[in-house]
Amino acid sequence: MVAKLERRMAETSVVPADHHVAVSGRVTEVDLRYTQNGTPVLLVGLAGEDGRPYYLQVKALRGRAEYWADRLSKGTPVLAEAVLSQYKGQDGRTYTSLLAKRLELVDPQAVGESAPDARGNTREVPGLNLFVGRGVAVRVESRTPTLAVVRARFVTGGRRDERGYAPAAFVDVKGFDEVARELARVKEGQPFFVQGRLRVDTWEGKEGKRYELRVEALFVKPLLRESGGVLEEGKGDLEEFPPEDDLPF
Amino acid sequence: MVAKLERRMAETSVVPADHHVAVSGRVTEVDLRYTQNGTPVLLVGLAGEDGRPYYLQVKALRGRAEYWADRLSKGTPVLAEAVLSQYKGQDGRTYTSLLAKRLELVDPQAVGESAPDARGNTREVPGLNLFVGRGVAVRVESRTPTLAVVRARFVTGGRRDERGYAPAAFVDVKGFDEVARELARVKEGQPFFVQGRLRVDTWEGKEGKRYELRVEALFVKPLLRESGGVLEEGKGDLEEFPPEDDLPF
Repeated sequence: MVAKLERRMAETSVVPADHHVAVSGRVTEVDLRYTQNGTPVLLVGLAGEDGRPYYLQVKALRGRAEYWADRLSKGTPVLAEAVLSQYKGQDGRTYTSLLAKRLELVDPQAVGESAPDARGNTREVPGLNLFVGRGVAVRVESRTPTLAVVRARFVTGGRRDERGYAPAAFVDVKGFDEVARELARVKEGQPFFVQGRLRVDTWEGKEGKRYELRVEALFVKPLLRESGGVLEEGKGDLEEFPPEDDLPF
Repeated sequence: MVAKLERRMAETSVVPADHHVAVSGRVTEVDLRYTQNGTPVLLVGLAGEDGRPYYLQVKALRGRAEYWADRLSKGTPVLAEAVLSQYKGQDGRTYTSLLAKRLELVDPQAVGESAPDARGNTREVPGLNLFVGRGVAVRVESRTPTLAVVRARFVTGGRRDERGYAPAAFVDVKGFDEVARELARVKEGQPFFVQGRLRVDTWEGKEGKRYELRVEALFVKPLLRESGGVLEEGKGDLEEFPPEDDLPF
């Protein structure tokens, strides 16, 4: 009994994600699937405009998947708060998606709508498309004076593996114009803070059409390597919240 | 032993915050205090510009407070990720502040600096000043056609009280111009999503100068009341993260 409880406690010591995604849009598709183990997975397509059109997909799991499968249909305006999630497809490639931590229905009266696109879907206008987080640069490429791309590692949250590594996603962060100059200054191994929006880039690969989720940076803030995050890691949320009367300032 | 472990597990079932703050700036003051119970509390003043100058204060607790007290000094560029925190002062008034969940040192080479202000402090240019979250409107005031103010309740995270209520902060969300029109449409009791920036408003009260932390909304998205957040609440983070090989899509 004690051993079981201790095991459950160890399991609940998860690492929080170091980034936050908030995206809204009108639903373009709702697709409920089940994994081999019977886990329900809901895929929800969202379309919106943040100046330019964007199309994104968010994923919901388990009870949340089945709950929302019944409530969403084409055109429903939805807001999702999510984190990055990375997995290996059956083709051996790594795919990045958005795992919804929370889904909400947007008030339809407060939302504008684009004309239908080629597939008959309308986009939410204006849509919310926000990525905020702290990544570590693993590769820095200054492609042109007005385009820099930093491959970055973000902690997606969850249990550490046996070697103590937190679950992570590797994502390209792109910056244009002035942001490109900021981004190009980041060194490999250096942590940086980024605020931006999400895009799915598409291109023709050798084996057909490819898709990849990327961050378009709008604001970048390079951080010092010895930034002292160490002390923060592994601390539970619990001790953050002293009784109110113990905090007179 | 079992009872003790069970108690610890119950204590760790905390509610997450429904908002996120990321602010950067140059340090204007570092003030380490101790509560009557001996809890270290560090108050850090930050100054930056997000188009206009802003001055904010973030608070760090316990080990984090003492760790950062030694490392910060006037002028250090810092980035804080934080949540709202509300407490009752000795004067009986309610005060809102920012509780840092994480502090990081910004690379000084990547940061611009304003000319010194009247107190000799310089501001970080450009500074990051981001508030993102989901509140519930408790009072809606459309003051003029170009100014609306919504008093909103945000969950600050932590343990529920005996009656099951999550710890919360009540904060004014202000919107100007077009955002005022969006904000004025929110009904009392309605949840809404807001992206904006933080300001400390100051004014002369009957008993002297008053300060209050407020959110200036830049983007507002009203949500449906029956938005289905219920299913999300109380779910641990643990079940969000299935083994990777159980997620083929």
